[in-house]
Amino acid sequence: LDAGETDQVYDLVERLHPADVADLFELLGADERPMLAAAITDLMGSEVFAELNDHVRELLVESLPAGEVADIAEQLDTDDAVAMLEDLDHEDQQAVLAHLEPEDRAAIETALSYPEESAGRLMSRDFVAVPGHMTVGDLIDYLREDRDLANEFWEVFIVDARYHPIGTCALSWILRCPRGIALTDVMKRDQNLIPVDLDQEEVALRFQKYALISAAVVDPDGRLVGQITVDDVVHIIQEEAGEDVLLLSGAGDGDINEPIRESYASRVRWLIANLLTALVGATIISHFGGAIEKLVALAALSPMVASIGGNAGTQTMAVAVRALATNQLTRANTGRILWRELRVAMLNGVTVAALIGIATALFFANPLLGAVIATAVMVNIMTAGLAGVVVPVLFDRFDQDPAVASSVFVTMITDSMGFFAFLGLAVASGLV
Amino acid sequence: LDAGETDQVYDLVERLHPADVADLFELLGADERPMLAAAITDLMGSEVFAELNDHVRELLVESLPAGEVADIAEQLDTDDAVAMLEDLDHEDQQAVLAHLEPEDRAAIETALSYPEESAGRLMSRDFVAVPGHMTVGDLIDYLREDRDLANEFWEVFIVDARYHPIGTCALSWILRCPRGIALTDVMKRDQNLIPVDLDQEEVALRFQKYALISAAVVDPDGRLVGQITVDDVVHIIQEEAGEDVLLLSGAGDGDINEPIRESYASRVRWLIANLLTALVGATIISHFGGAIEKLVALAALSPMVASIGGNAGTQTMAVAVRALATNQLTRANTGRILWRELRVAMLNGVTVAALIGIATALFFANPLLGAVIATAVMVNIMTAGLAGVVVPVLFDRFDQDPAVASSVFVTMITDSMGFFAFLGLAVASGLV
Repeated sequence: LDAGETDQVYDLVERLHPADVADLFELLGADERPMLAAAITDLMGSEVFAELNDHVRELLVESLPAGEVADIAEQLDTDDAVAMLEDLDHEDQQAVLAHLEPEDRAAIETALSYPEESAGRLMSRDFVAVPGHMTVGDLIDYLREDRDLANEFWEVFIVDARYHPIGTCALSWILRCPRGIALTDVMKRDQNLIPVDLDQEEVALRFQKYALISAAVVDPDGRLVGQITVDDVVHIIQEEAGEDVLLLSGAGDGDINEPIRESYASRVRWLIANLLTALVGATIISHFGGAIEKLVALAALSPMVASIGGNAGTQTMAVAVRALATNQLTRANTGRILWRELRVAMLNGVTVAALIGIATALFFANPLLGAVIATAVMVNIMTAGLAGVVVPVLFDRFDQDPAVASSVFVTMITDSMGFFAFLGLAVASGLV
Repeated sequence: LDAGETDQVYDLVERLHPADVADLFELLGADERPMLAAAITDLMGSEVFAELNDHVRELLVESLPAGEVADIAEQLDTDDAVAMLEDLDHEDQQAVLAHLEPEDRAAIETALSYPEESAGRLMSRDFVAVPGHMTVGDLIDYLREDRDLANEFWEVFIVDARYHPIGTCALSWILRCPRGIALTDVMKRDQNLIPVDLDQEEVALRFQKYALISAAVVDPDGRLVGQITVDDVVHIIQEEAGEDVLLLSGAGDGDINEPIRESYASRVRWLIANLLTALVGATIISHFGGAIEKLVALAALSPMVASIGGNAGTQTMAVAVRALATNQLTRANTGRILWRELRVAMLNGVTVAALIGIATALFFANPLLGAVIATAVMVNIMTAGLAGVVVPVLFDRFDQDPAVASSVFVTMITDSMGFFAFLGLAVASGLV
């Protein structure tokens, strides 16, 4: 396809939705993307840029002159323009900003002044806010007259003289009321105001919990400065919920479009951390070198004890991390959840310990070895249940993301406990 | 608080949003929930039930007489009523259905006839559909007159004589047009029609990709039968994205409100599977019993080689599983992504192998042991990179959820390869 026949490519791409064009870019290799961009220049509208994966967009944007980037940024909503520019290095960013109309530049600069991943970066400045003295009819006339409004909006915000939001009105309510009714009689007074510096994860949780379509963003003085609509939040919900599996596994950002060097940098850190924690296990094993020389079966069985504990710990940890991320696990119920997980661990422990104990006793014709491994597995699964809740909860208490480093600690605890309990019990019981 | 003073509890709860009341139930222990329900009976509106966690709701619903459940179901939207009833066993479900008004019963029975987790279960039957010959003014008059319409809607569907949707109109466009304009001139013809049997995960991906607020659901004949709005999809996006971490870790449903017996049943299966795969590793180790007796350091070091491979495999697997779930990894780019992951694995392998090789050579004053462990780690990290992509992709090709069982296979592969490469090389190199 990309072997020169640009006209055909153009014809094929022309029929696609911008989101599909963006997908097409992501499917291509890094070297083919500029070729596609060149073949379909006039289809590369701002919508396509808004839909592109961050990494792919960054590469494409960097290959364009600042003037062209500025042209695209001007067609985008503020939030999409900010997303496009925030990843550029400072110099390129300034070059693009210099090409923008003063008004757009001011809007983007203000947005960039809010912390990354905050409501301020996410919000759009295109919203409809009207004073409370308007009637339904006034509002409809105002909307019909003013050509400079946002194209799509779902709710209208009612503000007082100081531009503080006092109510929200869904468009369906407005359409269903006679013209004479005052907006203050239609609007919902109970509002969900988003502070401009609220973290995007919190924003997403609020949208989800209260089933919001749009919400007013207010500055520290309570003045309406923007709105966030649910379509901007949907991909954050997806990212935040999906990133736990990547973080827990130590895969960092985990984006298949990420440059290889970045993937390497984020992953090798955790492999080295894993190396160091595995060293703890290795040290414990080498302390029992004498016991292993006497009974080599210990060397074959001890990784099993560690592995089962690690698996049980990962299960509990995954549950705890998700419960923390969705605000289901809080200070109020930590004790109850810990007790719940310990009871599950007890059931799991008894089952697995019985299986491995009986199998070992029979296979090695050594009942004591069976009893030792069963006890060690039981102890390690209980330890895993405890550590799987306590480690993420502690990270959360100290305001660290529990998904980031819990895994390393839980695995270290279950590995060490597995080797120590099994080999220690083997010696203490007089087995070797 | 719950120690008898029900009036005070009532006063406190009265001020809360239904979603917060639902949260309150989830925070309480299973035995305290009926007490709270009794204290605030008349605040237990249908909204609270709609917001409750599935497990918590199931327990509460089961404790209520069928007549009361039916009263609550009648106040709910069809989709929420279906969610409440679909988990009941057949007998209880029939008892509740018998108490419903014929019209509601028919709607719920039709919804229950669609497969679980399909668009048909998710959709609401309350939507606004009008014929194409209407003007903006006709529509506004119709909306003002008909009191029986949905309370909140964001888009109006335009249908032809056979009730096939021909266009969609955002309410903001209607509000901004003069009354005389025909709806067919305002509506967007390019539609995203959802087949009634589409899986909810696909529905969620479409909403996300095309930033939809609502979408028309059509039956196999193309007739409009319902609508899905984004607020119903948001929690599915969150669940589907968040469940990967739970599935990959073998924690099943992973809900902290799940009954203990169900958690036990779903988790112990994976622990037993892990037991069997760990057995493969143990078998390999015991084949090298002679080598370990000669050099006990092998017993201490071999779990490290397995563990680092397991960790690298989990990283790649998490990336692959998320990329598959979000449709970023498809047939078209599997080869490229595999090659990408192998290059990352090569970089990781060289770094970690060098570290562990040099440290081992120095610590044991044995350069050959260092070379053996470095080679084994390199081989195992490359194997992990390969297995981490290939295993989930194969599950996906055979229409299995890659998150469910990939973990067991990848760990088995990296464990076995770790032990085999390290101990095998130790023997082959003449180290022991």
